[in-house]
Amino acid sequence: MSSLNKKFPRLMPRPIVKGMKVADLIDGTFKAYNGGRLAEACRLFTEKMIAGNGLVGMSLTGALTPAGLGCSSIVPLIKAGLVDWIISTGANLYHDLHYGLGMNLYAGSPFLNDVELRRDGVIRIYDVLFDYDVLLDTDAFVRHVIQGEEFQRTMGSDEFHYLLGKYVAEREKKLGIKETSVLSAAYQYGVPVFTSSPGDSSIGMNIAAMALRGSKLLIDVNRDVNQTAAIVYGAKSSGATSSVFILGGGSPKNFILQTEPQIQEVMGIEERGHDYFLQCTDARPDTGGLSGATPGEAVSWGKIDPENLPDCVVCYADSTITLPLITAYALSKASPRKCKRLFDHREESYTLLREAYFKHGQVEKIEHRTDLAKKPKRGRSGRSVSGTKR
Amino acid sequence: MSSLNKKFPRLMPRPIVKGMKVADLIDGTFKAYNGGRLAEACRLFTEKMIAGNGLVGMSLTGALTPAGLGCSSIVPLIKAGLVDWIISTGANLYHDLHYGLGMNLYAGSPFLNDVELRRDGVIRIYDVLFDYDVLLDTDAFVRHVIQGEEFQRTMGSDEFHYLLGKYVAEREKKLGIKETSVLSAAYQYGVPVFTSSPGDSSIGMNIAAMALRGSKLLIDVNRDVNQTAAIVYGAKSSGATSSVFILGGGSPKNFILQTEPQIQEVMGIEERGHDYFLQCTDARPDTGGLSGATPGEAVSWGKIDPENLPDCVVCYADSTITLPLITAYALSKASPRKCKRLFDHREESYTLLREAYFKHGQVEKIEHRTDLAKKPKRGRSGRSVSGTKR
Amino acid sequence: MSSLNKKFPRLMPRPIVKGMKVADLIDGTFKAYNGGRLAEACRLFTEKMIAGNGLVGMSLTGALTPAGLGCSSIVPLIKAGLVDWIISTGANLYHDLHYGLGMNLYAGSPFLNDVELRRDGVIRIYDVLFDYDVLLDTDAFVRHVIQGEEFQRTMGSDEFHYLLGKYVAEREKKLGIKETSVLSAAYQYGVPVFTSSPGDSSIGMNIAAMALRGSKLLIDVNRDVNQTAAIVYGAKSSGATSSVFILGGGSPKNFILQTEPQIQEVMGIEERGHDYFLQCTDARPDTGGLSGATPGEAVSWGKIDPENLPDCVVCYADSTITLPLITAYALSKASPRKCKRLFDHREESYTLLREAYFKHGQVEKIEHRTDLAKKPKRGRSGRSVSGTKR
Amino acid sequence: MSSLNKKFPRLMPRPIVKGMKVADLIDGTFKAYNGGRLAEACRLFTEKMIAGNGLVGMSLTGALTPAGLGCSSIVPLIKAGLVDWIISTGANLYHDLHYGLGMNLYAGSPFLNDVELRRDGVIRIYDVLFDYDVLLDTDAFVRHVIQGEEFQRTMGSDEFHYLLGKYVAEREKKLGIKETSVLSAAYQYGVPVFTSSPGDSSIGMNIAAMALRGSKLLIDVNRDVNQTAAIVYGAKSSGATSSVFILGGGSPKNFILQTEPQIQEVMGIEERGHDYFLQCTDARPDTGGLSGATPGEAVSWGKIDPENLPDCVVCYADSTITLPLITAYALSKASPRKCKRLFDHREESYTLLREAYFKHGQVEKIEHRTDLAKKPKRGRSGRSVSGTKR
Repeated sequence: MSSLNKKFPRLMPRPIVKGMKVADLIDGTFKAYNGGRLAEACRLFTEKMIAGNGLVGMSLTGALTPAGLGCSSIVPLIKAGLVDWIISTGANLYHDLHYGLGMNLYAGSPFLNDVELRRDGVIRIYDVLFDYDVLLDTDAFVRHVIQGEEFQRTMGSDEFHYLLGKYVAEREKKLGIKETSVLSAAYQYGVPVFTSSPGDSSIGMNIAAMALRGSKLLIDVNRDVNQTAAIVYGAKSSGATSSVFILGGGSPKNFILQTEPQIQEVMGIEERGHDYFLQCTDARPDTGGLSGATPGEAVSWGKIDPENLPDCVVCYADSTITLPLITAYALSKASPRKCKRLFDHREESYTLLREAYFKHGQVEKIEHRTDLAKKPKRGRSGRSVSGTKR
Repeated sequence: MSSLNKKFPRLMPRPIVKGMKVADLIDGTFKAYNGGRLAEACRLFTEKMIAGNGLVGMSLTGALTPAGLGCSSIVPLIKAGLVDWIISTGANLYHDLHYGLGMNLYAGSPFLNDVELRRDGVIRIYDVLFDYDVLLDTDAFVRHVIQGEEFQRTMGSDEFHYLLGKYVAEREKKLGIKETSVLSAAYQYGVPVFTSSPGDSSIGMNIAAMALRGSKLLIDVNRDVNQTAAIVYGAKSSGATSSVFILGGGSPKNFILQTEPQIQEVMGIEERGHDYFLQCTDARPDTGGLSGATPGEAVSWGKIDPENLPDCVVCYADSTITLPLITAYALSKASPRKCKRLFDHREESYTLLREAYFKHGQVEKIEHRTDLAKKPKRGRSGRSVSGTKR
Repeated sequence: MSSLNKKFPRLMPRPIVKGMKVADLIDGTFKAYNGGRLAEACRLFTEKMIAGNGLVGMSLTGALTPAGLGCSSIVPLIKAGLVDWIISTGANLYHDLHYGLGMNLYAGSPFLNDVELRRDGVIRIYDVLFDYDVLLDTDAFVRHVIQGEEFQRTMGSDEFHYLLGKYVAEREKKLGIKETSVLSAAYQYGVPVFTSSPGDSSIGMNIAAMALRGSKLLIDVNRDVNQTAAIVYGAKSSGATSSVFILGGGSPKNFILQTEPQIQEVMGIEERGHDYFLQCTDARPDTGGLSGATPGEAVSWGKIDPENLPDCVVCYADSTITLPLITAYALSKASPRKCKRLFDHREESYTLLREAYFKHGQVEKIEHRTDLAKKPKRGRSGRSVSGTKR
Repeated sequence: MSSLNKKFPRLMPRPIVKGMKVADLIDGTFKAYNGGRLAEACRLFTEKMIAGNGLVGMSLTGALTPAGLGCSSIVPLIKAGLVDWIISTGANLYHDLHYGLGMNLYAGSPFLNDVELRRDGVIRIYDVLFDYDVLLDTDAFVRHVIQGEEFQRTMGSDEFHYLLGKYVAEREKKLGIKETSVLSAAYQYGVPVFTSSPGDSSIGMNIAAMALRGSKLLIDVNRDVNQTAAIVYGAKSSGATSSVFILGGGSPKNFILQTEPQIQEVMGIEERGHDYFLQCTDARPDTGGLSGATPGEAVSWGKIDPENLPDCVVCYADSTITLPLITAYALSKASPRKCKRLFDHREESYTLLREAYFKHGQVEKIEHRTDLAKKPKRGRSGRSVSGTKR
């Protein structure tokens, strides 16, 4: 007889009953396969990632805000202080504006006749529908806002989204609506929002067109790279954990992960990598869809310490199912945290990283070390990389 | 301005709050993409499939019982009268025996060292673990039971599983456990359980080996084909609807769907096909993984009436996530139904179908009709096929 | 500096040039990810599976014959003696009949209007189109043939398909066509063809309906389980290797793999399992779509010896792409083999297995052994299971 | 009888024979499912996209260059003049440097022990292996090069990659190697290479770190947005077609598609959208993995004219399989084209677009038009958008 009973819990689910709460269903019946991973994700987020005031970064890809996950899940997580910083595709932030500006989106179907939709001036994102005017009005809002004086300079995307969020919040207030928009909530709660591909979305397209007309607005990509690393470094150097909550994949995933190699490998500052890793995705490593970002693969890069592998959870399922479940679980099981308002401290954290870079860092090739097994767990190290270095 | 607001509901989710119940979360926040499909699936099952005492057949593929979904979801659905008949892979029924026989399975991990597991005599099904003895003891139970007199003949798989379920129920009673096994619950509630591939599982393997030793037990595949068609015909001819709830795909999926073409095309009896279609799968039509079974494709076969397409829902997500959610939703929103105990009526329904076949059916080639558009909705028809005809 | 160069080939592809042959493209440029797996699959098949006159079994799922892979790939492999036995879904054999009976299928599109198709009497399998008459005429052929005297009994599916194939071959001859049908080629070259789910397809449906009209034809599932095990046992006990070439998954996959546990675990005959494992699929282990059948997972079951893991290749890609490539590679790189004509020896191999079972086998619980590490590589063993035991 | 034979080719593949060439295999046996799509992709590329000197843009995501597809496929396509401009992830360009700098990558396995790899200083990208020094040396190369005077300014990513490619080409020459690197080949043949997420990769990370040390290099995202639109506008306004060849998805996919809405919607210049669309991906629309970018969905946005839908091909398969096949087909079936050297004309095309914008464009909200059905095929139009507008 093996000693399975000493190492693993017995798999004996509870029968489902009428009126069950989300957290009870997850704890009682999600036991194996992706259901098991989802339960582990809920517990990882609730018991480890947000514990001890740990830093939580979230990356957003896929049509999350069009699907209403901004209002239902991300804004409540921001309000509860459970998400500290965000990297998003431009598309998610552009479509978030529709909600913040009080426009109407509709729950349609993926099986409609697109030729008829086009004739009727209806735009479709999979099964989300809205009038063509929603695009035009949102574009007009962006173009109008960015003509303001405060936008006439080179700035990080966090700063740009903060300024934009201020105008969304104003519009929300004027319309008598609230908690509809990620950008507005992020502004109000001081949550920095970055984009890894600033030109890639209607927001970036309008900024670019206005640049031809004399606008001085330009997103400073270098600042974004260093500022995101500064956020992680600020947390880690203060003794807090750093966690990533990755919805989908794409360049936001890579951008949130590369903060650690930026600190360690490129800047040469000693650090040990993200502590907790939670991903909901449908991409697969073997096709290259998850290239470089499975927790297992990351061990070879030193992105993740093998000791932390049990704290890495990948759930292969649609974020439109997993995010509401994880949010409901976390809000039910954990207490709200005080918002860190990291945006308010962007200059301090940036300065802290730059000083560490100048003090410890180097631009020369770091001497090669293969005897990593012998390095002390938290000692001096030329290389204890973490995150995605691509 | 389009008239979207007249045709579709506004997509405006509710913010998630502490202590939320499953049904409220699904109705309030699952609005688009597979989340939207899952919410539609919940409502389709609860508001249409089980309404008016409609017939509900369920097909089981993938490692559902090893993952604990027998105990958590399928048994409660059987008890509540919400599932009337079942087609399963042999593997799901074999592993269901472990639960019914009081054996221990463990919630492990997919990332264990299989060489070490083997050395320690531990069996792994993805992330479900158990001792090798569990296999040997389950095999011994099957071999012992099928040596009984009542098993010494050719019979349908529904009859075989009913007899087997009786012994599982006895063992459960002796062990002082209950509601652990699909086979036991199906026996107790008169739910017929078929398998589409009777030789394909440890159960079938033990039956085959015992046949070499003189056992007379043989599964009558022809009876299964006709009996499953009889169940559907019995419901439809009495005016009830017939629905399929498909978990995964594979041959159980096809077997549950082919009941309609068996009635209409092969037997030549007038019928109009399954009314509601609900599938949770990760297979894709373009790779052939869903060959022939998407609702859209089925329209060309006449398997599904185009008018019923809105009542066909496919949710691309893992059954270990979707089945508990749908079960919790249904048990919360719907009242239990009186069990139909279809097994008790297997001879009557079989006779009813045979008589209809001899009366109306034909073995000659059915005359070709292309002018299907003109046929009356419920009138006489040589071809209003439904289900998968492969 | 590591010693990578001693263990692995340098990854340096050849530039693609005009007029390149398939085998050169695969060897020269398919180096990593699923491309790399496909190249490994080609070499595994060509250099190991068919070497030394090893036994090669193939399992067929997904719409392979409708897509034309019967004519293009499977028939040429049978003719060249590179496939010795087959397990197929019923659907693949049913649609194979269309080709063998000289009917017309068309290369259409998956994006057609199914309502219009149905109105026009056109059947669609994803992007394959044909007239409704094709179904009716094929059904009529099956019903006509199985009324013959030779079909009036219980028989294995290999025997049934052999008899059916004879009539297809006759029809081919009469029509002046050849090498269009898997069933016909299998008949001509003595390749046994089984189905794991005999009731699940239009063939099984017509057999079942005719049973109501007095036909005595019944597929003997027990014989199929034992006969498939006998084929593998025959090869292995003569010193040859046994390989599986799995297209897709489903119950044919399991049925081909379970031959080994049938021999070892259920019959208690010493054996060591399939030697080479090649699978092209789009199913995934984590969703249960590949439940129990990844080579890695199989190690814990003892299905595959850890020493053979390098000889297990899974390529996650559509069989409509991979099968022609593997076939072209194998036919280009390997010489044809003399056909084994296993069907002609079905009684001998069956008798051989039965005798071994009666001599060595046991029906009692096999004593539990965990100290598998110590067992001799080819010595006496109560458990050296291989294949899928579900 | 339907008229299928008038509308579609009969599906009758050729049997595969020894020594078959790639193009013959594809034309003769790739008939349905993703195999069929791949054959359509080959013909779309060869017969339409590159015909009439049409513009071909390619987007690169997933680990293509690590897998050797740079050397094997992309460089030969560039040399043959079949790819005119490129948008890539930073990772593909970073790993391309290893090849151009003569470093060694190895064809390994995805199943290695990452803890041991890390101990030995080996980096793993799925199944591609290399020494940690490869990263350090590549970083050092980037940092050294960008300290040059010509890099001390704000510039588009096309210009940056051109300058970088010059140094790679120099290194190749010094090392006596050639045609190993996409960046080098793009430099030599004047193919502009953009990245949509300039901060997201080791290249961007090193640029950002050097910015802290006084480097003046900053990627001008606005210029990239407008320059890519200018390339498309230049082709279309000269009467040529514009095609996209999308490998994977992600932000490069969106960036290549958004060129059309940038011209039409944001700049208000009349245009009609990309003419041909070819994508190889494993992402799925229903999970949001393909959000907004299926050809069908794009019709509702006006991104693609419904009349062009037959010219949109999506093949769901791994680029490591499809790209070599498409490349071999195209090089075999088509003649090389004279390279367009678009990089040499970047200022002219940029000026042309800006002038059109100032002449025809507008920043006010474009009046809403729903009666799109009536608009003339090539007439004046406020909205005939094409591409992804997110």
